[in-house]
Amino acid sequence: MSGALHPRGHVLALSGGVGGAKLAAGLAAVLPAGRLTIAVNTGDDFEHLGLTVCPDIDSVVYALAGLNDTERGWGVADERWRAMDMLGKLGEAQWFNLGDRDLGMHIARSWRLRDGQSLSEVTARLTGELGIVHPVVPMSDTPVRTQVETEEGLLEFQRYFVGEQCRPVARSIRFAGTPGAVPSPGFSQALERDDLAAVVICPSNPYLSVDPIMAVDGVRDVLLSRRVPCIAVSPLVGGKALKGPLTKLIEELGKASDNASIAQHYRGLVDQLVIDECDAADAEGLRELGVSVTVTQTVMREAADREMLAREVLAAVGVETD
Amino acid sequence: MSGALHPRGHVLALSGGVGGAKLAAGLAAVLPAGRLTIAVNTGDDFEHLGLTVCPDIDSVVYALAGLNDTERGWGVADERWRAMDMLGKLGEAQWFNLGDRDLGMHIARSWRLRDGQSLSEVTARLTGELGIVHPVVPMSDTPVRTQVETEEGLLEFQRYFVGEQCRPVARSIRFAGTPGAVPSPGFSQALERDDLAAVVICPSNPYLSVDPIMAVDGVRDVLLSRRVPCIAVSPLVGGKALKGPLTKLIEELGKASDNASIAQHYRGLVDQLVIDECDAADAEGLRELGVSVTVTQTVMREAADREMLAREVLAAVGVETD
Repeated sequence: MSGALHPRGHVLALSGGVGGAKLAAGLAAVLPAGRLTIAVNTGDDFEHLGLTVCPDIDSVVYALAGLNDTERGWGVADERWRAMDMLGKLGEAQWFNLGDRDLGMHIARSWRLRDGQSLSEVTARLTGELGIVHPVVPMSDTPVRTQVETEEGLLEFQRYFVGEQCRPVARSIRFAGTPGAVPSPGFSQALERDDLAAVVICPSNPYLSVDPIMAVDGVRDVLLSRRVPCIAVSPLVGGKALKGPLTKLIEELGKASDNASIAQHYRGLVDQLVIDECDAADAEGLRELGVSVTVTQTVMREAADREMLAREVLAAVGVETD
Repeated sequence: MSGALHPRGHVLALSGGVGGAKLAAGLAAVLPAGRLTIAVNTGDDFEHLGLTVCPDIDSVVYALAGLNDTERGWGVADERWRAMDMLGKLGEAQWFNLGDRDLGMHIARSWRLRDGQSLSEVTARLTGELGIVHPVVPMSDTPVRTQVETEEGLLEFQRYFVGEQCRPVARSIRFAGTPGAVPSPGFSQALERDDLAAVVICPSNPYLSVDPIMAVDGVRDVLLSRRVPCIAVSPLVGGKALKGPLTKLIEELGKASDNASIAQHYRGLVDQLVIDECDAADAEGLRELGVSVTVTQTVMREAADREMLAREVLAAVGVETD
């Protein structure tokens, strides 16, 4: 469909980690409070050293709060690893590196979860303290755990992604905890809003970061049944992911690392694809697949880039900023 | 009694935090593996932000491992507080400051305790990793919690000591969890060794740090019934504690802040008191109380000071170093 039924309505953004978080932050910068909900992948979440680590929620939160490290491209600005250094001296697992500032986040979250608060409640509390005005919600409050079936066996996500650095050849991906994981209250509310104007799929890895969100009970069905424009920003630039294992992964899963594969992956769900200028030549072929295409700069180096991309994405689906 | 039945036997040191930890480190430097056990006060232990904090065990461990900060006089060397900074941004309690390296210790301990390991097991594991060869044991593996009855009500130890900076006027001290807390296995073993040559009470606060150890079931009785030399190093220099609230506390509890009060407090338990050179004039009066007195430098600024004091303490009870 084209245009929006609610040009000043609500936007639901779906995001994974760092790349998606940048666009989420761009959307948060150009949409006022009350007009944006960001639902975040929790398939990467895990327990480590007694702490609950939520990497994608934290990427989004740090980006929105301006706490993210822009040079390193991940984690918190002005970060150090003194706690990990002590943990190393104490013989503790070193394969997953937790920064000192980041540990503050995990410590605050973990005691509250143990105390019986839901992940939604904890996230709302902590984002509120950081002055974030747009709801950042987990895709679900019950655990969903992404697992990668590889030629070396089934690996939990973090073991695959961080421990093994995505080295093992992937065969398929599954999401433990689904079916059976319902959307978080904030996610449900956004999905069912009368004034839902658009769904934006941020440029995260479709297989590892977006598919888990779609695996949550009823999400895909609601999106398919509602006549709300859905736009995805391709995570590829020149056929390659800017960060992460997407190219290697797509190829191991038997497809080409290109925008056609992205469009195919989102077929039926997504009406529009935003691709980078350097892939302008892909546009014609994508349109033949039945998807509208916007060609623009998708690489977000500065805050201005992500705001500009956010505005273009919203314009493409007929949603007004203020 | 004088002399030791086992000049090359085992030494049991009882310690609280920083001051006591210095002498414990001195003893560890001059006694070979197998000849020293350090039993540590756990009355200051508490749960904070979902972590189990054991301040006195950690003071001893850091001192023995050479990780302690000698300038600040407490905590870990080269420490920073990035995690606390994030916790502050997240609206979390700021009254108890946990350093980043120190957090590594609490994180390592806490998940293991939750996993069902005893405090003794966890402490043995972590000290082993740090290359500490002498057993550092909790006074008990079941929680004992020091509480201070003040004119403003009953305060948990850390609330009194850190939160209120020892400001409220103290009336009495109690140890929740006693009776009913048995000595840890390592503490029991040391107390019952045939070759126990001496008990050394390190220069910690008698009321807040040593009395909890004495409150553990059977400890006082074993020490009184065994004919093992027991020597205490006074925590006072010139009638004042080098660190902490001892002087204010002793006076609030109705006594004078002097070595006579220390000797009275330990009466029946302690045969010998080690006092600082600047209090040499106290010696005669103390001997009239029936306690042997050694006068020496008790202030420990450098590693050499604590080793020298350790040697003097051991010589006073007839125990040989190697």
